[in-house]
Amino acid sequence: MEPVDVTVAALHASVDDPALNSMNFLNEVAQHYPDAVSLAAGRPYEEFFDSAVLHRHLDTFRRHLADDLGLSAAQVDRTLLQYGRTKGIVHHLIARNLAVDERITVDPEAIVVTVGCQEAMFLVLRALRAGPEDVLLAVAPTYVGLTGAARLVDLPVRPVAGGPDGIDLADLREQLRRARAEGLRPRACYVMPDFANPSGVSMDLAQRRRLLDLAAAEDLLLIEDNPYGLFPAAGTDRRPTLKALDTRRRVVYLGSFAKTVLPGARVGYVVADQRVAGSDGTVGPLADQLAKIKSMVTVNTSPIAQAVIGGALLAHGCSLVAANVRERAAYARNLRHMVDGLARRFPTGGPVRWNVPAGGFFVVVTVPFTVDDALLHRSAREYGVLWTPMAHFYDDGAPVNALRLSVSAVTPEQIDEGLDRLAALLTDELAHGVTAQGRRYATPRVSGHPRL
Amino acid sequence: MEPVDVTVAALHASVDDPALNSMNFLNEVAQHYPDAVSLAAGRPYEEFFDSAVLHRHLDTFRRHLADDLGLSAAQVDRTLLQYGRTKGIVHHLIARNLAVDERITVDPEAIVVTVGCQEAMFLVLRALRAGPEDVLLAVAPTYVGLTGAARLVDLPVRPVAGGPDGIDLADLREQLRRARAEGLRPRACYVMPDFANPSGVSMDLAQRRRLLDLAAAEDLLLIEDNPYGLFPAAGTDRRPTLKALDTRRRVVYLGSFAKTVLPGARVGYVVADQRVAGSDGTVGPLADQLAKIKSMVTVNTSPIAQAVIGGALLAHGCSLVAANVRERAAYARNLRHMVDGLARRFPTGGPVRWNVPAGGFFVVVTVPFTVDDALLHRSAREYGVLWTPMAHFYDDGAPVNALRLSVSAVTPEQIDEGLDRLAALLTDELAHGVTAQGRRYATPRVSGHPRL
Repeated sequence: MEPVDVTVAALHASVDDPALNSMNFLNEVAQHYPDAVSLAAGRPYEEFFDSAVLHRHLDTFRRHLADDLGLSAAQVDRTLLQYGRTKGIVHHLIARNLAVDERITVDPEAIVVTVGCQEAMFLVLRALRAGPEDVLLAVAPTYVGLTGAARLVDLPVRPVAGGPDGIDLADLREQLRRARAEGLRPRACYVMPDFANPSGVSMDLAQRRRLLDLAAAEDLLLIEDNPYGLFPAAGTDRRPTLKALDTRRRVVYLGSFAKTVLPGARVGYVVADQRVAGSDGTVGPLADQLAKIKSMVTVNTSPIAQAVIGGALLAHGCSLVAANVRERAAYARNLRHMVDGLARRFPTGGPVRWNVPAGGFFVVVTVPFTVDDALLHRSAREYGVLWTPMAHFYDDGAPVNALRLSVSAVTPEQIDEGLDRLAALLTDELAHGVTAQGRRYATPRVSGHPRL
Repeated sequence: MEPVDVTVAALHASVDDPALNSMNFLNEVAQHYPDAVSLAAGRPYEEFFDSAVLHRHLDTFRRHLADDLGLSAAQVDRTLLQYGRTKGIVHHLIARNLAVDERITVDPEAIVVTVGCQEAMFLVLRALRAGPEDVLLAVAPTYVGLTGAARLVDLPVRPVAGGPDGIDLADLREQLRRARAEGLRPRACYVMPDFANPSGVSMDLAQRRRLLDLAAAEDLLLIEDNPYGLFPAAGTDRRPTLKALDTRRRVVYLGSFAKTVLPGARVGYVVADQRVAGSDGTVGPLADQLAKIKSMVTVNTSPIAQAVIGGALLAHGCSLVAANVRERAAYARNLRHMVDGLARRFPTGGPVRWNVPAGGFFVVVTVPFTVDDALLHRSAREYGVLWTPMAHFYDDGAPVNALRLSVSAVTPEQIDEGLDRLAALLTDELAHGVTAQGRRYATPRVSGHPRL
């Protein structure tokens, strides 16, 4: 028998939690079936990857330090190689990017550069979870990284209905009322207003304003996560972020460069301009409190990784819209190819439905039967196609009749091949007369697509 | 009046904790007196810094991926730019380094590459803190990053006397007994057996074996932190780490490249080969559980930053002893210069005493009066020299009559200048007849220095 030093039951509960095991499970399936077409991975497109950019970006940022900021050669070396500022060294470039691309005006001192957006999420949740009465609200279905980070700080996540408008405001009000009636303190509500992961749903402008008004009226913080905002569908316009509309410091904004520059830098950020009064009477941005936590998690974000992102920003006047012309076109092309491909393979009004997102990486397909991990295994093994059961994005383990397809890391040819295989699987399942059971996923409102 | 959105009292208690404010305070003092000589900073020596190494290391690692591991050009690009393996991509090189430099044999699968050693510390403490009955033991005085990470997961830290042997084993036994009698569960004891920060004290070989025996007898995990082990004083030998002597998987080993390659990569690691039985009956290394937590903190360590470290390792056959010939000589020279300088300025048998560490970055000076933040401010303002009050390394706020001097980020000339200024301050304090109050710091045993 194998020796055992400790059981998982003696470790923090998070390590045995579905939210943390979910990603592992999905990765393992992918590794187990390397030849399957993956419509599961939310990774960015790799066709334009070229690691030669690393040298170029590093040198661009070094020149920026020397020429624009006036640093000596020794200071440049020290900035890149030594320990550094906890809140980061590309905050001024991020502020400029937010001004240029998002019309968000923010004091660079209110920005913390983090190790990917995941650390930003973790820092915010760690700061907000002060005691056992604290809870977080999140639009369901929810990005699993949010749920996982909440688990690490023992912060319960309560679902708010998403629905066709991105967030059901009546349900948000009801969840706030209920939590407070139970003596709980809802610290914030997590939302992804643009092309949400996994639902693909976006909020329209009026809904954004209503959400901000509600947040002000209810004294609620909003955590806005925006990894996909740069990638609208072909022919559609981008909408202002909540943060751009936020005149009352209600929004903590999470930013990622994983999809707009490259994931390997592991650089993200948080804009936290909320005014925090310290016990000594001084008032400063919430960012300063997050930085204190960060100093005990990762000390500071690698200045080398930041330099890569800084160089990429500088190469395009701090506009990621400009930097991603090719990528934006590729994602829009893929999204259209996916929804066109679904329409070609499944009859309108039939049992298989899907939404047509206004942008982003994800499309949700609903079917009249439960979509679980066993079906994913069968799909991988017998049909050679991977996708993500929507059940992974809910926290309650209830059955879900939907699956998520991703368009981000595949070519149009792979989309065709993957959809052929998916159609074979679903046709087979439908032929076996499996009937609906469990949660009925409501196909979100169709928008931005002439066909439907 | 300034608008306030939230008070610090509504945030997690860690943000207002002395452990987290300590580093901020010390950084602020340093920024406020930029012209002061800093004998405070534990940063590595900067004389050999050259950011051109970044390109070289990156290219070395890219060649390694292609030539040694057989990856295609597209796979190399993907490895560096895309999301990647949670446990890291330089684990095999770290295992080789541990074999070459430390004679530690470890399965690369038991290694998690982390965002600096700080994240390694955080992951281990997060995993171990399962409930309110859990406590951590740590040799006092303790590295403040350990205390801070423990605060983030609400894990109380109980001090164990360090004393002249690096750890007082009778006190360790007593603390274990006491905690258990209170219904608490001591999860581990944190130790820095080589040239500890801040005490400078090391454990001899016999003490290491006794500690390992005690850990086995008491079913206690040891967390061994080893950032300075590569830097013995001139003419002294390195000792085997606890992990090299660990035949019973009692030791979780924390590694850092901040002092041996460069801090700016923010790459560290943890060796966690303890066998963990999952709820599904499978058994795997503790590293796998830590990786699950990591996936919700930083997802994975930047492969670009890992490539820089990987390239540096490859450049010297994975030996950091070989890679640090210049640095090792510089630190040893500085350490000798510091203790010689102290001996020249303060009479033997006088009121000012200090230890003579067998290596590392730090020397502790004891004086017959309390050394607090006010004295540091006065030292910076009136005498132009910075150092660290030892009180920052204790958790109880009690007064301490000692200060830490660092030799790592200064030249011999700066050491002379700093010591002249320190001598002026201490002489002035002594002349004012301030008497001893508060905790009497016992000067650790002097070793490895012919003068004392």
